[in-house]
Amino acid sequence: MTVSPTTQPQTNHSLPPADAKQRVSQFMQTLQDEICQGLEALDGKGKFQEDSWQREEGGGGRSRVLADGDFLEQGGVNFSEVWGKSLPPSILKQRPEAEGHEFYATGTSMVLHPKNPYIPTVHLNYRYFEAGPVWWFGGGADLTPYYPFAEDAAHFHHTLKNACDQTHGEFYPVFKRWCDEYFYLKHRQEMRGIGGIFFDYQDGNAPLYRGPDPNGPAAQYSNQLAPIEPLGWEDLFSFAQRCGRAFLPAYSPIVEKRRNTEYGDRQRQFQLYRRGRYVEFNLVYDRGTIFGLQTNGRTESILMSLPPLVRWQYCYSPEAGSPEAELTEKFLVPQDWVNS
Amino acid sequence: MTVSPTTQPQTNHSLPPADAKQRVSQFMQTLQDEICQGLEALDGKGKFQEDSWQREEGGGGRSRVLADGDFLEQGGVNFSEVWGKSLPPSILKQRPEAEGHEFYATGTSMVLHPKNPYIPTVHLNYRYFEAGPVWWFGGGADLTPYYPFAEDAAHFHHTLKNACDQTHGEFYPVFKRWCDEYFYLKHRQEMRGIGGIFFDYQDGNAPLYRGPDPNGPAAQYSNQLAPIEPLGWEDLFSFAQRCGRAFLPAYSPIVEKRRNTEYGDRQRQFQLYRRGRYVEFNLVYDRGTIFGLQTNGRTESILMSLPPLVRWQYCYSPEAGSPEAELTEKFLVPQDWVNS
Repeated sequence: MTVSPTTQPQTNHSLPPADAKQRVSQFMQTLQDEICQGLEALDGKGKFQEDSWQREEGGGGRSRVLADGDFLEQGGVNFSEVWGKSLPPSILKQRPEAEGHEFYATGTSMVLHPKNPYIPTVHLNYRYFEAGPVWWFGGGADLTPYYPFAEDAAHFHHTLKNACDQTHGEFYPVFKRWCDEYFYLKHRQEMRGIGGIFFDYQDGNAPLYRGPDPNGPAAQYSNQLAPIEPLGWEDLFSFAQRCGRAFLPAYSPIVEKRRNTEYGDRQRQFQLYRRGRYVEFNLVYDRGTIFGLQTNGRTESILMSLPPLVRWQYCYSPEAGSPEAELTEKFLVPQDWVNS
Repeated sequence: MTVSPTTQPQTNHSLPPADAKQRVSQFMQTLQDEICQGLEALDGKGKFQEDSWQREEGGGGRSRVLADGDFLEQGGVNFSEVWGKSLPPSILKQRPEAEGHEFYATGTSMVLHPKNPYIPTVHLNYRYFEAGPVWWFGGGADLTPYYPFAEDAAHFHHTLKNACDQTHGEFYPVFKRWCDEYFYLKHRQEMRGIGGIFFDYQDGNAPLYRGPDPNGPAAQYSNQLAPIEPLGWEDLFSFAQRCGRAFLPAYSPIVEKRRNTEYGDRQRQFQLYRRGRYVEFNLVYDRGTIFGLQTNGRTESILMSLPPLVRWQYCYSPEAGSPEAELTEKFLVPQDWVNS
């Protein structure tokens, strides 16, 4: 394997401002507020219920759940802010410079499970870490449709791409590929949905891709890039804010377009079946879920991502040529949604 | 920590007979047949459908599923027999003598999800491994009730204890504690059900407990035992057969007793909710499931254990003093069911 010059992390010369934690924490709470307000307005019926919680080792959060709304069967939006003596080994492996330093982490995450099978399930998570000399932003948003509408996938991707492009034109191409790589169910040989963007360990330096597969499309694309002018903390914070605020414009029009489409038992049963894949991904592969469960996170907040009702069926296979078959064959494999 | 003399595995002087694999494989298939026949007779309506499959790297199996029966909402009984170049690292860690040797493994596993919430879900798995100079039996059976009936738990445990006692009087006390330890959801601080027996790496030598927690009740009980006369391969094979054949007598009377109990939406909803814990255990903790999914096992056979319909509900808590609360408080913690 040839390692291009950009695969070695550059030294990060941009330190966070003194009030970095406070500013990001404030933004993450504002993002939670804006998303909850936007979703309540969009739903028109359901209201979020809030639980505040404290973490024994330091920090806490506020979990908000909307159940049995008009379009939302269940939606959860979490804010959390935690600190402690040291980051877990899995993260230190990626960021050895953080070893021996206290850490701070804050973020907002969300999963929405709509009633109507023509409206996709959607997930969002943006987070910020500091530990001694190192800091980084991570996160993303991805869409999981039950029925195949290319225009919905294109709209979602276009909106996120526009948010990315304002910071750097290579963010979307790398983070879109990283998203395809991350939300993948190996045992099903399927993507969880039609993707979106996913990034982690972003501190303004190359390489953009910092994931586990050095030979995948995301790494290959990232490695062939010309050297990128390092970005500063403010650039990355702006980027995270733009991405977070791109969520409602990315998702709301899809809800409006599909919420009145009539559906029957066939569509509902397929939705419940496909929700099983969401459970499988979150419990078998999702780093945040597994890490949270193994480290005494607040279980109810972590598992808020699981659907309210789910079905498994042995050896189910959709009828050839059906919309259900089209979903698996054409939508749950990587696609260039912004240029198709 | 003081390590008692029996915690060091003794040398195994009993080699398997030349036709060991064939005999165990034959038994595992017979066990699958007997259980399927017994369950069809008990159900009275549903019939098992069989899929045979081959494993590319060597071996294969036959999966049998009964869906929409009279008492069974879904039941799966798998037989498999596989071989290959080397055991996975997770097993080699426990059995380093198997390193560098080809392996053979055969087993039968089963999960039943009844319709009536008063009938417990039940799981069984018996398996046999050979790799060069080493061989061992593993397995067990455990019960997951939705409603608290002490007499059902006692009957299930008594039946398994009787099967164990015919081989050795200390098997049940150790394997019962090991079962309580294994089927535990750390993130819920709950047992999956009321347990049963669980054992692994049994080759007739001390110590009986070979699990991961050197300080748990199973290890403590196992370590304080007086030295046990080593058992031979035939003894262990007889033990596995007795355990396997104890399943129908352990479970059928519970089905007969509860199948006509009327239930309403409250009981059904609680059953669907508790089934979520089954999914959480199987996907987050169960070694067989995770290992199977990560090593290209047959996904549909592995995930046959998941319930046909499942519900999650944020921050659900049963009413104080209700049967639902009694289940969690008194049944999902270790209990001495045979002496209570």
